[in-house]
Order: sequence, then C-alpha cells, then structure tokens
Amino acid sequence: MEVTVSPLSLSEVVAALERLYPPHTASSWDRVGLVSGDLDQPVSIVHFAVDPTLAVIEEARAAGADLLITHHPLLLRGVHSVATTSAKGASVTALIQNGIALYAAHTNADVASPGVCDALAGACALVDVEPLEVVDGVGHGRVGTLASPLTLRAFVLQLSTVLPQAVAGIRVAGPADALVSRVAVVGGAGDDFFDAVRASGADVYVTADLRHHPVLEAREEARGGTPYLVDAGHWATESLWLKGARSELLRELGGRGTSLNTHICTLRTDPWDFVIGAATSDNTGGMS
Amino acid sequence: MEVTVSPLSLSEVVAALERLYPPHTASSWDRVGLVSGDLDQPVSIVHFAVDPTLAVIEEARAAGADLLITHHPLLLRGVHSVATTSAKGASVTALIQNGIALYAAHTNADVASPGVCDALAGACALVDVEPLEVVDGVGHGRVGTLASPLTLRAFVLQLSTVLPQAVAGIRVAGPADALVSRVAVVGGAGDDFFDAVRASGADVYVTADLRHHPVLEAREEARGGTPYLVDAGHWATESLWLKGARSELLRELGGRGTSLNTHICTLRTDPWDFVIGAATSDNTGGMS
Amino acid sequence: MEVTVSPLSLSEVVAALERLYPPHTASSWDRVGLVSGDLDQPVSIVHFAVDPTLAVIEEARAAGADLLITHHPLLLRGVHSVATTSAKGASVTALIQNGIALYAAHTNADVASPGVCDALAGACALVDVEPLEVVDGVGHGRVGTLASPLTLRAFVLQLSTVLPQAVAGIRVAGPADALVSRVAVVGGAGDDFFDAVRASGADVYVTADLRHHPVLEAREEARGGTPYLVDAGHWATESLWLKGARSELLRELGGRGTSLNTHICTLRTDPWDFVIGAATSDNTGGMS
Amino acid sequence: MEVTVSPLSLSEVVAALERLYPPHTASSWDRVGLVSGDLDQPVSIVHFAVDPTLAVIEEARAAGADLLITHHPLLLRGVHSVATTSAKGASVTALIQNGIALYAAHTNADVASPGVCDALAGACALVDVEPLEVVDGVGHGRVGTLASPLTLRAFVLQLSTVLPQAVAGIRVAGPADALVSRVAVVGGAGDDFFDAVRASGADVYVTADLRHHPVLEAREEARGGTPYLVDAGHWATESLWLKGARSELLRELGGRGTSLNTHICTLRTDPWDFVIGAATSDNTGGMS
Amino acid sequence: MEVTVSPLSLSEVVAALERLYPPHTASSWDRVGLVSGDLDQPVSIVHFAVDPTLAVIEEARAAGADLLITHHPLLLRGVHSVATTSAKGASVTALIQNGIALYAAHTNADVASPGVCDALAGACALVDVEPLEVVDGVGHGRVGTLASPLTLRAFVLQLSTVLPQAVAGIRVAGPADALVSRVAVVGGAGDDFFDAVRASGADVYVTADLRHHPVLEAREEARGGTPYLVDAGHWATESLWLKGARSELLRELGGRGTSLNTHICTLRTDPWDFVIGAATSDNTGGMS
Amino acid sequence: MEVTVSPLSLSEVVAALERLYPPHTASSWDRVGLVSGDLDQPVSIVHFAVDPTLAVIEEARAAGADLLITHHPLLLRGVHSVATTSAKGASVTALIQNGIALYAAHTNADVASPGVCDALAGACALVDVEPLEVVDGVGHGRVGTLASPLTLRAFVLQLSTVLPQAVAGIRVAGPADALVSRVAVVGGAGDDFFDAVRASGADVYVTADLRHHPVLEAREEARGGTPYLVDAGHWATESLWLKGARSELLRELGGRGTSLNTHICTLRTDPWDFVIGAATSDNTGGMS
Repeated sequence: MEVTVSPLSLSEVVAALERLYPPHTASSWDRVGLVSGDLDQPVSIVHFAVDPTLAVIEEARAAGADLLITHHPLLLRGVHSVATTSAKGASVTALIQNGIALYAAHTNADVASPGVCDALAGACALVDVEPLEVVDGVGHGRVGTLASPLTLRAFVLQLSTVLPQAVAGIRVAGPADALVSRVAVVGGAGDDFFDAVRASGADVYVTADLRHHPVLEAREEARGGTPYLVDAGHWATESLWLKGARSELLRELGGRGTSLNTHICTLRTDPWDFVIGAATSDNTGGMS
Repeated sequence: MEVTVSPLSLSEVVAALERLYPPHTASSWDRVGLVSGDLDQPVSIVHFAVDPTLAVIEEARAAGADLLITHHPLLLRGVHSVATTSAKGASVTALIQNGIALYAAHTNADVASPGVCDALAGACALVDVEPLEVVDGVGHGRVGTLASPLTLRAFVLQLSTVLPQAVAGIRVAGPADALVSRVAVVGGAGDDFFDAVRASGADVYVTADLRHHPVLEAREEARGGTPYLVDAGHWATESLWLKGARSELLRELGGRGTSLNTHICTLRTDPWDFVIGAATSDNTGGMS
Repeated sequence: MEVTVSPLSLSEVVAALERLYPPHTASSWDRVGLVSGDLDQPVSIVHFAVDPTLAVIEEARAAGADLLITHHPLLLRGVHSVATTSAKGASVTALIQNGIALYAAHTNADVASPGVCDALAGACALVDVEPLEVVDGVGHGRVGTLASPLTLRAFVLQLSTVLPQAVAGIRVAGPADALVSRVAVVGGAGDDFFDAVRASGADVYVTADLRHHPVLEAREEARGGTPYLVDAGHWATESLWLKGARSELLRELGGRGTSLNTHICTLRTDPWDFVIGAATSDNTGGMS
Repeated sequence: MEVTVSPLSLSEVVAALERLYPPHTASSWDRVGLVSGDLDQPVSIVHFAVDPTLAVIEEARAAGADLLITHHPLLLRGVHSVATTSAKGASVTALIQNGIALYAAHTNADVASPGVCDALAGACALVDVEPLEVVDGVGHGRVGTLASPLTLRAFVLQLSTVLPQAVAGIRVAGPADALVSRVAVVGGAGDDFFDAVRASGADVYVTADLRHHPVLEAREEARGGTPYLVDAGHWATESLWLKGARSELLRELGGRGTSLNTHICTLRTDPWDFVIGAATSDNTGGMS
Repeated sequence: MEVTVSPLSLSEVVAALERLYPPHTASSWDRVGLVSGDLDQPVSIVHFAVDPTLAVIEEARAAGADLLITHHPLLLRGVHSVATTSAKGASVTALIQNGIALYAAHTNADVASPGVCDALAGACALVDVEPLEVVDGVGHGRVGTLASPLTLRAFVLQLSTVLPQAVAGIRVAGPADALVSRVAVVGGAGDDFFDAVRASGADVYVTADLRHHPVLEAREEARGGTPYLVDAGHWATESLWLKGARSELLRELGGRGTSLNTHICTLRTDPWDFVIGAATSDNTGGMS
Repeated sequence: MEVTVSPLSLSEVVAALERLYPPHTASSWDRVGLVSGDLDQPVSIVHFAVDPTLAVIEEARAAGADLLITHHPLLLRGVHSVATTSAKGASVTALIQNGIALYAAHTNADVASPGVCDALAGACALVDVEPLEVVDGVGHGRVGTLASPLTLRAFVLQLSTVLPQAVAGIRVAGPADALVSRVAVVGGAGDDFFDAVRASGADVYVTADLRHHPVLEAREEARGGTPYLVDAGHWATESLWLKGARSELLRELGGRGTSLNTHICTLRTDPWDFVIGAATSDNTGGMS
C-alpha cells in the first residue's frame, strides 16, 4: 500500500531554518534569510553551498534544486537593479528564471551551536569547547583544547587532512616546532577577534582571510610568542559546515523531511585557481 | 692629502627624500615623513626596509644605522602612549634609545616615478607603462604591456623568479593557459582599484592582500574572463622598491651622499612562517 | 517585395533612452536606468507608466510587453531580498518570470527638455518657459507666463481639464479671484523649491504632495499674497509626461523604431480610491 | 458680600498644563512649553488653537487673550532673529507687543490620555482603545474597535460628520464596500507608524498628511487588502483636541480656574482654500 | 526757512550697514544681521555696544534708542522660546516691548576694513598692516610692524594705555625684556589662528580669551621663543571698534544721516568685576 | 645587620596608582595611564607635576627621577611622530633618552576622593562636601558650605592665600560685598558644569579657564545674582592636588614605598609670565 506525502512548502523549510539559525542572532550589518522564492512553492530538492555564485546556481539548476541554502548572502549590499549587466543581477535572474529559492544563513550560522565555528573546532579536534567571546548573550568563535599538545606543524598538518583542499593551502605564523594546546577558531574572516583571542589564552588562532598589516601587528604585539596565527582559507573553513547544516535541517524537519533530496555543492568556490612558488614542507622548514 | 667631508645631517637627507617623495602626494589618510629623530643629528648609516618591526629596528641597530627608511609608517594610527607595554611603544622606545631616526615614504612612494608601482611594473617586464588611474594630477598604479603575450602561468612564473620569496607564493585566479598581454599592477593591497583595472582593459591585475569576497565578486563580474587576478604578496611586491629608493636617494644627494653607508634589510617581514598543503605546480595544473 | 527588419535589442532602446535622459543629470540620491532584463533580449512591445506597481506589471504582461518604462524607480532603496514576501520582491519576480525588462527615467526625466516639467508647463499653457532654478548646469522645474492673466480659480479649472483625473482633485491655497500670470511648476513632490519659487516672482506654484507645515509656513511667509500654491497630485502631474516620452523615444530610434508597439498605461496609480466631504466648486467659493 | 479672587498667574497655568502634558513625554526632536510671556503675568483670557499663525494671534488679540495655547510649536526650528522680515519673527513680535503668552503642547499632547489621539479615536467611535505602540513607557497612537463593523465608506462618512470640515475632505485608499472593524488612529502626520499599524491588525488606519510614495508602497505591501488608509487632514484631526484640552485645563485648575475666560479658535488653519475636480460621492463610487 | 528731513527708516540703515559689513563675509557658523525690529520703523537714535546684555538694552532704552548695533549676536544659537524665563528671551522681550531694533555685525565686522581687527592693529600702533590669513578672498586678522622695536613689556604698556580698562588687565606670555617688532592681532577669541601667526613670522600675537592648554602648547612649540602671546581681553579688544563703526555708518549714510543721534555704550560688558592677587608691575618683573 | 630592600618596579607603582585613580573612571575622551617607560624598570625617585612640559621633564631629569607623575596627559591627541621637530616629540624623546617613565592621572584624579576637586574644596575651606554631579556612579566636582558666610571678596581673599600664585591672580564676577555660603568647585576648566552649579544652589562657583561668552551668558542668566563666578586659574587650582597625590601614593605602597624619594615640581606651568594693568584691590573696589 502506498503512502503519499504532501511535498514540503518553502515556508516549512524556512521555519525550520530559522529555528536552527535564529535571524536575530545575526550581526546587525548582516542580511540573512530568504533572498528569492515564494513561501508557497514546494521544495523537494535542496542544494547546500558556501557561495551563491553563477556556477553554483547552475549546478543547483542542473540538479533540479528548488532551494539553494548558502552561507554567504547574495545581496549583502542592497541592489537597485537586477538587470543581468551585473553579476548580482544575473544571479538573481537565474534563480528566478529557474524557480530556485535562495536562503542565506550567515553570521547566525557562525554563532549557532552546532554551527560554522563548531564545525571548525571539530576539524581542529578540540575538546572542552566554549565560546571565544560572548556579546549580548551570543557566543562568537570557539576556543578549546587539544587532547594532547602538538607541535604547531603537526597541528596544522592534522587540520589540513580534514579541511577541503584549496590551492593556497594553509598559512602559518609561528615556530613550526612550538607546542600548542589551546586553540581559538573563527570560520571565515576573523581579524576582528584578535583581542578576544589574546584574552582567551589561546596558543594558536585558526581563522582566514588575514592581511599583512593585522597579522604583522599581531605578531609584533605577541613579540614572537603566542597566539600563533593560522589562515586556513575562507571557503575551506566555512565549507565544513555544509554537511552538518544538512543533517540539522533534516533532523529539524523530522518526518516531514523524508521527501527531500539534498546535495552538497561539489564546486570549490575559493576563487584562486593555482599557486606559484609556495614553499613546500621541505623548504618551509628552512625558512621558518 | 686628506679630504674631510662634513657628515650629512638628518635635515639634508629628509629634504632629499621629500624631493623624491613629496609628502603632499600621499593619500589624505596616510602619515608619512619623519617619525623619530632630530633634524640636527648626523646621518652616516642608512637602513632601508618595508616594515619597521622590532626585528628590523634591531637589525638597523646592529648595523649601526642612524636612519631607518621604511615604506610602512610605524604610527599610522595615532598613539597616546609609547610605553613598552605595546609593540608600537617598544618600537618607538628602541628607536630613541638607539638614536635611530625613522622616516616613512608610503603612498607618496607608491605614486612616485620611479616608485613602488614602477618597481612592480619592472618586475612584470612591462613596456609602455602608464598610470592606472590619475586622481588630482597624481598617477596611481601602473598599466603596461608585455613584450609578447604569455600564458597566465608563464607570466606568473616569470614574475616569481624576480620577486623575493615569501612562503605563501603567488596566488592566481584565472585559467593557467590563457594568453595575457596587458597587465595592471598596484604594489601592496590593491582592492580599491578594481574599477580602474576593468576600465584599463588589463588582462591581468597584479597586486596583493586580496580577500575572499572582493576576489570572488570580481571573478563573478568578469564571468570567468579578464581581468585575471594575481596576489603576489604585500611584502614581496613592495620590497622590490627598496633598492631603487636607495639609488634614488644617493643620486639625489649627489656628492653629499658619498659619506653614507647604506643597507637593504635582509629580513623577510612577510609575517607568515610556513605553509601546509599549497598546491605544487603539478597538482595545480590539475585543479585549475 | 517584403522587407524584414531585425528586431530591436534592449541595448539599442536603452542607448536611445540614455541619450534622451542622460543618467548623469539625475539627482545624486536617485537610482535610474535598467532595473531588470538582459541587454541582448529583443524588444518589440514597450509599456509606459508612472509607477511599476504589481498591477502595472500585470497590465504590461497582458499586453505582451518586453519592456516597461516607468518614471519612478522600483528599487530606490536597495533591496537585500527579492523573495515574494515583500511587494518589491514580488514585483522583481513578476518582471523576471515574464521576461519584462524595466527601465526608470526619474529625476533625469524631470530635468530633461522635453521632460516631465515641460509637460506640466504645457498643461498649464505657459509661454516663455525657462528653468525655475539651474544647479550645476542642469535646469530644475520651469517658470513661465500665461498668455493673459487669469483668476486663480480659472487657471486651476483650465489645468483640471488637461490633467488626468485623480479622486482628490486639485487643492489650491490662495484667493480664488486673484489674477495670476507668472507660474512656476515642478512635477511630483516639489516642496524643496519654495525658495526658488519666491525668487522667480511666480504668482502661483503648481506642484504636488504638499504637507500641512510647509504649506502653512509658505502661506504665512507670503502673508496671504503670492506665490499661491496648487497641489495638483503627484501621479497626475507626472503622468502627463508619458505620451511625450513615447514620442521622443520613437523619434530617437528613427527607422529602427518602426517595429515597436507601444502602450501607455491605462491604470491610475494615484493610490487614493475615493474622497468624502471635499468642497464642491459651489461651497468652495463660500469658504475661501 | 463680595468675594474677590486674585487672578491666575501664567506660572499657575503653565504648572497645570505640565501636569496634563508632561514635557518629558514629548518626542526628543520636539519643542514644547512656553514660547513667549512672563511667568508672573496675570492670565484671564485663554485662547486655544492648532496653529499659531498671524491670523490666530490677531484673533487672540482681538479677544483680549493673554495666553494662547496651541498644538504646534511656533519655533520648532530655532530662530536667530525675530525681526518682522520673517513670518516667525512677525509672530513673535505680535505676541510680545500684545502681551500674549504662547504655550505649545505638541507630541506630549499627542500621547497624553486624554489627548490628541484619544480625541481622534473618539471621533471614530472606537471602543476598547489602547495604544498603537508603546515606546519607553509612552503610548503612541491608538487602536480600537467599532461597535459593529461598517463598510469603509460608511465608516468614513460617519467620521466626516464629526471632523471639522476642510476643503480637501477625506481621502481613502481601499475598497468602499469592504467591512472594517479594527481601526488605528494617529492625529496629524502619521507615516512613521505603518509598521505598528500592520502589527496591530487594524483594518483601517486614520491619519493625515500622507504622500504618494509611502501610501502607494503601503498599498502594494498590502496587495490591495488591509490596512486601508484614510487621510483625514492634519488640521482637522488635531483640532478635535482643543475642546478637551480646555476642559482638562479648567478641571486641573479647579476653583482657581473660575476667573478664566476661554475661547476656541474659530479659524480654519488648514492652509488650502479651495479644491477643483475632487470626486463627489457619486463619481467616487464609479472610480474605486 | 525751515528744512524738514524725513526720518531714516530701519531699512535704510540696514542697507548702509550691509554695504559696510557684507553678510556673506561672515563665517558660515555666524548669525549676523537684523535680530529684532521692523524694516519700516523710523530710526533716530542709534546705540553701539559690544554685547546686547539686559543692562545694555536698558541703557539704550533710557537713551531713547530705536536701534542697537552690537558686535555679538544675541541669538548665535537658535532659540525655541522667547519667554522671559531665559535671559535670551528676556532680552528679546525687552527689545520688542521698547521698540528697539537690534542689528549684529560680528565676524563680518572682524574682517571688514576698516573693522575690528584694524581697530586693534591701530591700538597696537602697527604700520604696514596686512591680513594675517586670507581664506576664500577674505582677510582674517592683521599683521604689521611697530615703527621701531620695543621690549615686550613696553609694547604691552603702550597698548594698555589705549585699550579700555577691564579688571583682569592684559596677560603676557614671554620675556618682558625681549624686543618685538612684528605683531599679529585678532580681536576677541583668536586661538584658531596660531598656525597663521607662526607662518606670519610675528614676534607677538595679541588676541583674547586664551586658555591654559592652547597657550601652554603654543609656548612649548615655540620653545620659549616667538611668537609671544598677549591676552588683552575679549571685550576690551573688540570695544575699540565701536567709534569707528559709528563714523563709518554716518559717512555711509551721508546727508541722510544728519538726523541721527548716536551713542557709544558706556557700560563695561567684560563680565569680571574684580581681581584678587594679580601681580603688579613690580612683582611681575620678579616672576617672569 | 643590614636590611636590603629590593627597589620598587614601575609595575608596582602603576598598580598602586590605578587603585587610587581607576582608569575606568576617566572621561571617555581622556587618555590616562602610562605614557612612557617599561613596567620592569626600577623606580626610586618620583616627580609630581601638573604639566609634562619640557622644563618639567628637565627638572625631573636633574632630580634623577625615573618616574614623572602628571595631571595632564602628554598625548591627549594621538601622535603620528615623535621626531623632535614638534614639542610633543621632543618631550617623548627627552623622557626616553633619560629613562623617565611618565604616568598621567587626569579626569580619574579629578573625580577620585581624595582627588583634585577635593583638594580645591579644602582650599576653599568647605564643610559638608558632596559631589556636584553624579554621572554613571562617578561624582564630578564638589559642593559644600563655608563654616560661616563671608563676603565674596573675603572668600576669594582667603582662597588666594592658599592657592599657589599665578600672575593673573583670581578673577571674580559678582558683587564684592555679597555674602556667600554655599560653594561649588571644579578644578581646571569647568564650563561644562554651569547647569549642575545652578541646580546645586551654590552661591559661588570656583573653577578656571572661563571665557567671555560662557561667563557673560551665565551672568545674564543669573540676572546679577548667584551663582557668582570665580576663575582661580587652571594650573593653580590643579596644583593643589600634587601633595595629596604624593601622600596617597606612599600610603598605598605601604612599606614598599619606603625606598622612594619624591619631589613636587617647583616650576609654575601656568603659561603667563606677567600682567599689565590688572586692577589692584583698591581700584577694584571702585570698579565693581
């Protein structure tokens, strides 16, 4: 005997997402939530990705997705046109033409538990994990401890086996042979948290998108000591969250979710295509 | 018969530097010029560096320098204390305790001709070089042409042989085999110039300190085409200028400069110490 | 013998519109130009309206339009979502789903000659028309003279026969029997121009969307004298422009425009549906 | 035996007014309280009006008033001159020359209970009235229910019989025959309260001074449904308060008030003098 | 045979004042011009003062003045009330009750030639006087030379014989016996001009209202040398202008001015009433 | 048997100072704390002064001081250079070259109890002293009562015997013979506290650095009555604190402080050197 299940509506999925990632926990400058689509449209195939690029939208379309869930908002800066002359406009147009709803869980997913920072803490194999900083009752970043101390090099090598690979690899500022135990993490660009990292007593800070001046100033302030810095890549550190987000969403939907097909994006949206002249492990040792 | 030459005073050297790098050509937010020292002090040993770190100041001291000329200002943000509890204060204290004057030529050296961007254009082997953008009569960045078109990979490989090596190497966004001919360059962090680069018709843009979102949005806007992007490192792209600055200063001082000893900093002030998991040339080909 | 004409592309029509209404003449806060659509799409049916409401978009769709030209921008304030939960999002979605490009000519059409203010000056039967105020070389508003003086009541009655009818009619502040000759006009909301109106020596100022305090203060400043004020309705004063815009566009396209079908919106987008208790001509006389 | 009562001083009347309309409940941008006069001057004749225009001041003078109480502040924007070259200066000069104190109760009278919004709620015949929005403990606007549902047209017709007549009448956006029951009201310009109105579940919102864009956007957002909008005139909606203010003041003064003579302004300070072409009830039906 | 001269109107006097002290030459933050009065009122007695205090207004009233001309604006900050509860309101009320027009010529009189700074330069016995600084074509302050060098003490003693006496006397920072020749002057508070004074090569700067920190920092910057500083009192340095302003006004009015009576205020509006413990000339010598 | 006491470290002295003058009690715009020096350096001679001028630094150097404690911050505005071309840079350079740590306790010392305002209240011989105003739990200024009423002149004469002498003496606005009893005080520049002074019911307000306009407006507002104003000099009113600060520091250090030598600055850092033409007591009487 067959059982027919009525398909999920977008409004049901959005409600589940907003229970997992309450919009009010997002940063005030952020723009999270539903970007395109109609709450009454049915949802049967969901695609998860870090960035809503044109290629990702095309991948979702080819997969028959009617909902694309991304970490980064498509329209963080407001747009006054959706003409295809701009990439943002072309993306909006492609989403609507193909009936794909887009939903973004950004800084609200960063702070959620489980969320982006928890996924990175897990990739670092941390225990006794707690928020790096609590602001207005919301915990940002994570700090925890390794099961046993590792050299900085060994710690990063371990992390590199878990992170999805981007061509630039993982950059490290600190002595390769120093032992580290306490680790702070912030997925994506984390240069706003240097003060909290110092206050946390972390030996090493894993984040991404670090630039010359903040890193050099932080290293000067540390006088060569801790916290050491690890730039593990914006896309790489955040893409860790996608699988967990899928699991959480399905769990949250309960029996209603059984009709869903889900896909994790297979494209690397780290924008760099290749690297020339990066130090290999061998010559690295000589330089550090 | 002996000839005794009176030593140069700091005021003479500063005057020469300000003819080469007029302070009024610096950006309004910048803070260039003399940071420490007394205009009447004699100058006999001059040290050149990109960053006035504590290690660089120590290197200058060990070399007996009485003047340190850097690209980056030590006190871009104003300080209210020079106690050694902060790295900035410790740097100021070390300079004064060791009688080392510090002089910064920053955005005024970027736009000077010859200057930082010219040095990078030279490293790229460009001909027919002109300013990338002219604002209020001052030319920012450079754009020029390769003697003959190269693949993007060959262009960057050539550049990598000329740039000082930093552990992260050079990151490239674009197809390795695409031919490029017109090249825009901005030493250091150049993400404010994307519009000018697009307007210039450049095939590739060489700069540094690029982050995930601006790069991804620029690549989306380019729909995979030109301009391709090359992040060649903040320190690496700017350190090219040091030798030219020394030559220009000595030339500007003429006979008065014969008493000077000069040194180029031998320390790499790129803050990264090692890299794990960066793609090698071989696996790069497979990924791009 | 048949002649086949290749259809116009959106880019050709946009180019013609931007010759008629150069975007750089728009106010700095304004957002004019292409709002949706692809420059390569063909254009054969063009719809003209004051406001891009959902009903207007539906009217355009029913007419088979592939281009909607409006006076008011749809996205004057930037949007971060085009989900159909908001009216703006529903409008964008309807435009894209139906392949309708949207183009807005707003303050650049106000100042153009011929443009919105010229159309209103024409409806007022003005001669010797000149700009009310010239700022940075751009003429805003218009001021001119009646062929022969009229009473304020007769002037407005004449105007009411030419303006499209909105339920609120035309509000007048001033004595009905006073003679007026010199008339200033600004289509739409014109309360920023009171100083220019006073400087122009106008007897009466025709504009729209006037509120209690600015009107009362202007009347106090005039001590009951000129300039008298006429609020002729935002939609009504601007809808006068639509026919002229069509003519201008067709003229600008020349032979290329022969393939176009054009429609003027038949909907009243003045938002008021009915009025209770407004004074009729008869009781008006008694009150003024 | 005669009883002589010492006349009231201005300070006694001001104290009573500030108990009724505490100045700290006014909006931060507002300027309420005593505008002219001396606290020691005697008060025997009090005039009440919405606007302190030159004609109102003359009416007060002719009535022998020594105190004029208005809703709108004369000097909401600070003045740097009271020369009679400006209308504001002429008003100040007339007040002082004629010994008339001026007192304004504006947003503090809007929020008072009873106050301006209560008077409008009463005119709408609402029951179960409560604040529309509470901010920092102060209730703004009112929302309540009709004793029994009415059509939108019937509701507004009823209101028009209670409101003082202004030439423009009452503008309505919404279907004349729709039934309405829950009504939100804000006297004067109320376009800052659209969000609160939507949150209140009101079927219709009665306020004034509404302009094209906010009304059209609110109607679009409502997709033709509720809340319907009623613009009942700035002066008309606020003049309802005058009689209540008089009663409250006399009640507050108790026996001390028996010496006062009071007058309600008989002038219509709505600035519009006549209307041309407004729809009558009959043609309205056809248009809506 | 008698000749009757029609009395001057306020508008004629204002026109003459605005030719002498064009309002557009005032600083952007300043508020100059007519503060009270009616342009049609006759003017026969004019009172001149630095400050429009209540006592000065009373002096003008007692003198029968119908016009008070002051240097300082009464309403530099805008007022929202002219009730007598504030001193500003009491002043406005007194002016209007007594039919006294008030006119302020402030920074436009500072820069006029002849004007406030010229009067101070004259009191200092300067020759070869030129503007201290020219901004947008308007000359601010003055700088000139003494006929022959004087000691700082002798220079200030000479100045003290010409300035009206205020109880605090003249404060001097600098060595009493140093010779000075080039003198910069700014009437009233001149601490915005320290850079211009240094650039002018002045040996001494005469101005007023100087506070501890600016003076101490200027003395530190001067390392004990020039420019020395003289604080000669705000009221004293500006009151020098009153007689010249009277002469200029009468000259500008020509024959029309013959009907005017004029008075210079006899009140000292320097607010200090007495001084305790100031150094006398004798003990001064010992301290400096 | 000898007892050797280990010298105090700068960090111990700073810790004691921050217990006495908690940095978080300073105003938000202020910059208090350690300005130069190294927390590990020994401290054996401490110098106390109001202002860290070059002469004061030289006095401290000559005294062999290794710590200078001042009331005014050296670098209230951030500096981008410490070259000796500026006085600030010369000061920083002199401090570092001579191994002198500089510590500033400014607005945190003003509000401390005992602190700057208490010292001034003591000099005024006040009893029943309480804060003039409490903001966020911190008491600013002081207000108290004289043991028995004095004439204003007698009160100031008494104060003049206690204050260190500066050449300008003490300026007073008010009638010399009026009796005063309740006195408000704020050391240094106190013109931000006029409202609090009025609210306190003080008969007289003792502060410093008062300028023409605030004083004249305050006197106008007082209509000649209280509060009278006393400008007792910025340096003079604050230098009263130095001895108490020394005592408090030694007390706070307990036995650890026995190794310290301390000095109070003997230089007058009031910048004025002499005064010409100030009223003596005798002629003062005649003027007031």
